[in-house]
Amino acid sequence: MATLEQIGQRAKEAEPFLRVMDREHKDQVLLRAAEYLVKETDFILKANGADMEKGRKRGMKESLLDRLNLTAERIEGMAEGLRQIAALPDPIGEVTADWVPENGLRIKRVRVPLGVIGIIYEARPNVTADAFGLCFKTGNPVVLRGGSDAIHSNMAIVEVLQKALGDCGCPECSIQLIEDTSRDTASAFMKLNQYIDVLIPRGSAGLISTVVNNSTIPVIETGSGNCHVYVDEDADLQMAVNIVYNAKTQRIGVCNACESLVVHRKIKDAFLPMLAEKLSEKKVELRGDEAAREAVPSMTPATPADWGTEYLDYILSVKTVDSLEEAIAHINRYNTGHSEAIITENKEHAEKFLQEVDAAAVYVNASTRFTDGFEFGFGAEIGISTQKLHARGPMGLEALTSYKYEIYGNGQVRG
Amino acid sequence: MATLEQIGQRAKEAEPFLRVMDREHKDQVLLRAAEYLVKETDFILKANGADMEKGRKRGMKESLLDRLNLTAERIEGMAEGLRQIAALPDPIGEVTADWVPENGLRIKRVRVPLGVIGIIYEARPNVTADAFGLCFKTGNPVVLRGGSDAIHSNMAIVEVLQKALGDCGCPECSIQLIEDTSRDTASAFMKLNQYIDVLIPRGSAGLISTVVNNSTIPVIETGSGNCHVYVDEDADLQMAVNIVYNAKTQRIGVCNACESLVVHRKIKDAFLPMLAEKLSEKKVELRGDEAAREAVPSMTPATPADWGTEYLDYILSVKTVDSLEEAIAHINRYNTGHSEAIITENKEHAEKFLQEVDAAAVYVNASTRFTDGFEFGFGAEIGISTQKLHARGPMGLEALTSYKYEIYGNGQVRG
Repeated sequence: MATLEQIGQRAKEAEPFLRVMDREHKDQVLLRAAEYLVKETDFILKANGADMEKGRKRGMKESLLDRLNLTAERIEGMAEGLRQIAALPDPIGEVTADWVPENGLRIKRVRVPLGVIGIIYEARPNVTADAFGLCFKTGNPVVLRGGSDAIHSNMAIVEVLQKALGDCGCPECSIQLIEDTSRDTASAFMKLNQYIDVLIPRGSAGLISTVVNNSTIPVIETGSGNCHVYVDEDADLQMAVNIVYNAKTQRIGVCNACESLVVHRKIKDAFLPMLAEKLSEKKVELRGDEAAREAVPSMTPATPADWGTEYLDYILSVKTVDSLEEAIAHINRYNTGHSEAIITENKEHAEKFLQEVDAAAVYVNASTRFTDGFEFGFGAEIGISTQKLHARGPMGLEALTSYKYEIYGNGQVRG
Repeated sequence: MATLEQIGQRAKEAEPFLRVMDREHKDQVLLRAAEYLVKETDFILKANGADMEKGRKRGMKESLLDRLNLTAERIEGMAEGLRQIAALPDPIGEVTADWVPENGLRIKRVRVPLGVIGIIYEARPNVTADAFGLCFKTGNPVVLRGGSDAIHSNMAIVEVLQKALGDCGCPECSIQLIEDTSRDTASAFMKLNQYIDVLIPRGSAGLISTVVNNSTIPVIETGSGNCHVYVDEDADLQMAVNIVYNAKTQRIGVCNACESLVVHRKIKDAFLPMLAEKLSEKKVELRGDEAAREAVPSMTPATPADWGTEYLDYILSVKTVDSLEEAIAHINRYNTGHSEAIITENKEHAEKFLQEVDAAAVYVNASTRFTDGFEFGFGAEIGISTQKLHARGPMGLEALTSYKYEIYGNGQVRG
């Protein structure tokens, strides 16, 4: 089993090769990898079977077993993901600025790979192929540290991907898996600054906070979403019902689902009964403040803890406010910087909300569920950043790039 | 004395105010602050005198005392810095992308402040006004933690800046100084994730590495520069002499000074004696490998440690290579991601060097000394980033911004 030091060195060795690969060659590898994943379906399923058996024996929850489980269809999905990434334009080499300052030098700002990317994730083996595709297309070697529950699946997938790399004349260590899944090794990985340029955790809030608190490598935080919909006094109430229903129930376990409703006092008596009736179709539990419960007495009383809770469940908190300003202050206090929406026909209110709410994506009259790299038209997504440094919101290929300045002189020296 | 918790809370309270301030109002504050700095010169000099006296009593080195020392002229320089920042365009609110993906939403990507910025620095009190100007212009509250040696100077400067803020109807806590300069408080500050969005250390390599290793807040690393000039076999040798002389000696204590020369074997016998003669004007010590010493026998023999050393002194290491490829490999192994140059008349060599050398700024036929926010035409600089995440190279106002997505719908829900 390779040591972390060896893994780091090999990744750095792959870096110069990937840095200058042209698009055609990178896409060739991605398509070959897709082909091999499908061809090696039985091999991958067998390895996944071992993980599933171990998981069942250890009494793993059904929902986790479902995430871990691979099928021929899911493997085809992984392959299709790689084909889609191959079809996307290559951001590397793009000149994003080009100018001549007073000293007469010509300065070009050119998009380049970020470097070696570390990914720490849990029990979803599809992340393995997905992360490889995005990192490889942007010229970044990737080092993966998946959970022990998926180790056999991950090893099999990485083996197949490495075969595709080797067959296309690329360093196999463009993707590497840390096979030692101990906590100590994970901790040491988070401090491997010499070899790893950026770390992206993907998974639960607990995993992400462990990485943020322990890594000395720069981290891109793909955080949780305590997303609000604010129904303004000037809202189209039927539109508001549709949007809240969609944002809350279309998929409950995702970070861009609505967790909290904020409603203007003037319309709460008209709006909340309409909404409660619609949400009863999905048996959504409402937890309201006193004013909200006056409008819908069947609501559970909300406690202060509700305002800060990401339920990821059929539960919605309901907060009543007296003004747009109060709504913005409440949202800025409790939101996690993900996705926030206002429902209003009032353009001034909409603009104020857009400007003053501090979050990656702020919507007027649309569901928060659209915060997603595919919906944004990025064609792919490595995660949704809830931090403000480097990348914010859905991260497509560009989020995995940096830039350098290429500068042309004719003998200039500084005076 | 305010606790860290109180300081963090106050910075967060200032944030919504600064987020929506218009350019005119921000520039008014900056100009008022410049005016007050000049007006309060005596007050600031008195406080600085106390720091200087303490420093002398403690036996502080002359070079450090010089950095700490303020004069009426230096205070005017701080004021002029603020006036220059006021004259720069405001990046906040700029729409950097605007599109309609398939779902029909209109998505605008808009430049916004980064949030609350923490700056950790050492004994240079001019950083206090400088950091305030850059952070304030970009709508970011700033929390400063300067060294204990400059505490009286920093307190006086912050008091003056806060008076200007107050007089212009802005929260005084747009700038705050941590007055407790103990190490424990510095450590706790680096973990204040709840209130601080990004931390920028400014100072020695030791300070920066302490922050990188201990902070749980995202850090922008403004690192050291082990910068190389490679003199290619196809170089104009007189140009090469001028550029190396400039890059090495124009100012020795800076991060973009040249620390190492890489020279092609074919021209070393012609070039190195010319260079040695020129550098002898400044008594530069040359430390060369065997081949270099054949050309200039008076050179000190280089040890392997020389290749990785940022001297910040009148010393230059000299490495001989047999090819452009070897030069690139050597530079990629030892450089710190700052500034690298090739001297060549061969366009293919220049392009290969530009593409393959991994550094923030890569030059053809120019001195590395140009890596600087003012030389790049940014009008200001908060530091030079040697990391690849978020900002690379000289950081002007844009480096202190993030973005948000403002999204306009008309009732869209996700299917």
